[in-house]
Amino acid sequence: MSLLVVGTVALDSVETPTDRRDHVLGGSASFFSYAASYFTPVRLVGVVGEDFPPEHVALLKSRNIDTAGLQVVKGGKTFYWRGKYMPNMNDRETMEVHLNVFGDFNPVLSEEFRRSKFLFLANGTPGIQIQVLDQVPGCTLAVADTMDLWIQTQHEDLMTLFKRIDGLVMNDSEARLLTGDENLVRAGHAVRKMGPKFVVIKKGEHGAMFFSEHETYVMPAYPTPQVIDPTGAGDSFAGGMMGYLAERGNCEPRTLKQALAYGVLVASFTVEDFSLDRMKQIERPDLDRRMEAYKQMLSF
Amino acid sequence: MSLLVVGTVALDSVETPTDRRDHVLGGSASFFSYAASYFTPVRLVGVVGEDFPPEHVALLKSRNIDTAGLQVVKGGKTFYWRGKYMPNMNDRETMEVHLNVFGDFNPVLSEEFRRSKFLFLANGTPGIQIQVLDQVPGCTLAVADTMDLWIQTQHEDLMTLFKRIDGLVMNDSEARLLTGDENLVRAGHAVRKMGPKFVVIKKGEHGAMFFSEHETYVMPAYPTPQVIDPTGAGDSFAGGMMGYLAERGNCEPRTLKQALAYGVLVASFTVEDFSLDRMKQIERPDLDRRMEAYKQMLSF
Repeated sequence: MSLLVVGTVALDSVETPTDRRDHVLGGSASFFSYAASYFTPVRLVGVVGEDFPPEHVALLKSRNIDTAGLQVVKGGKTFYWRGKYMPNMNDRETMEVHLNVFGDFNPVLSEEFRRSKFLFLANGTPGIQIQVLDQVPGCTLAVADTMDLWIQTQHEDLMTLFKRIDGLVMNDSEARLLTGDENLVRAGHAVRKMGPKFVVIKKGEHGAMFFSEHETYVMPAYPTPQVIDPTGAGDSFAGGMMGYLAERGNCEPRTLKQALAYGVLVASFTVEDFSLDRMKQIERPDLDRRMEAYKQMLSF
Repeated sequence: MSLLVVGTVALDSVETPTDRRDHVLGGSASFFSYAASYFTPVRLVGVVGEDFPPEHVALLKSRNIDTAGLQVVKGGKTFYWRGKYMPNMNDRETMEVHLNVFGDFNPVLSEEFRRSKFLFLANGTPGIQIQVLDQVPGCTLAVADTMDLWIQTQHEDLMTLFKRIDGLVMNDSEARLLTGDENLVRAGHAVRKMGPKFVVIKKGEHGAMFFSEHETYVMPAYPTPQVIDPTGAGDSFAGGMMGYLAERGNCEPRTLKQALAYGVLVASFTVEDFSLDRMKQIERPDLDRRMEAYKQMLSF
């Protein structure tokens, strides 16, 4: 079924303890779309400036990602993020953020895109996320991401959003910040009671947790010795998860669990190189091979 | 098969953000023995002072734990630890440590104990651990724990120990300290190459990882909303693991994996109350019920 994502398309400069890349393809919607494209066609809605390299658009198009919703603002500059990872490769410092054209982003969806059945609201203010949600009234599954900044500054809008979405994906630190509870099991269910039917807490190198009214479970990360750049891991996770759900066309508990596992595995590839470089090297069979190993790892 | 543990038997004072307990039963060998006793009889070797409450000995004996190797030093005082947990319930501060009689502990095993087949060397200097190992030459499986202090101060003895043991159990922070590698997958294999045939890295609320020449796997912690006191979780983990291995009487990869899962589950009970209080409320069927839920959680 049709999958739509609204989020950032960015240029990133990333510094790790051992290496760096400047002005590479980044942004939540880029990572999400590519990750989802292993499973299903994707409709991308975002905005870039005139400086955005055409080869990035070509790359997305080559993956069956519909970029008709990617606005190019004449004379504008693309969202830019520069960050530096600490030696633990988990904590990072944002050195620079320039919203540029994303600062005035006002997503208006085409008639075709409004009929999408699966919707992912990647990072953006809760206000913008609600505005998009209003345009896709017939969707089967609406899932949103959020971030610490909105928890701290847009609490009311966030609560309005939570009551209207089916699922929420967030980091462990964000779940703790929002609930004031250090125990992630309690925090996950507390967030769920704020509105979303299900909540996924991403724990980075420790995997992800799932919470619904009747289920609580944890999936460990796939143990890769190669962690080059964690940027985009969370968005790739969401892309893998939503891509699989859209491919299967349902949100049954069993499908959701498999979707989470695919999310974990796509993310495990993403961190193995900068930007989308590792994802560009793999295809669906690579994911399925890692899935076999993952399932074997978890059976005893 | 026979299982022997050598380690501390202590009195702990524990403060958490919401509660506290003073002078309760603690120590690595106490937690280990109780945890292992769900699976097999245990031989405990340790030392206490005259102040050690007899009801603690009675409790251990009631669990089929042979305390003939528990020396009582006349006029001596029992090992005492006082610690305080931070709000995240993961980091803790040691406020007081008095080795007391444990400072002069020189374990000499009885003829019967020297014929033990499964051996666990809980915390203690690598020198003492080697001294115990020398007394059990015919053991099938020798596994040791270690700690940051020995990594920093007894490196040479530690390397000698590593070459003689089958398995090593350590914390994530200790693995990082020892190898200087933040990536736990690489760190685990690096430690393995220092000698032990297998290495288990405990990650607290995130579970445990296993490394052998041909295997790398992760097991998530059981997601319990009730974390009252994490003291002894690592020792309970080791006790559950070794107890199950001794019960089964083999160390095949398949058995080891099941043993790790039991370790994770015993630890998930231990943290649900202070001291050994939660373990005292459960029996083997409670573990097996949680094992069923755990297996279901990990299958999709």
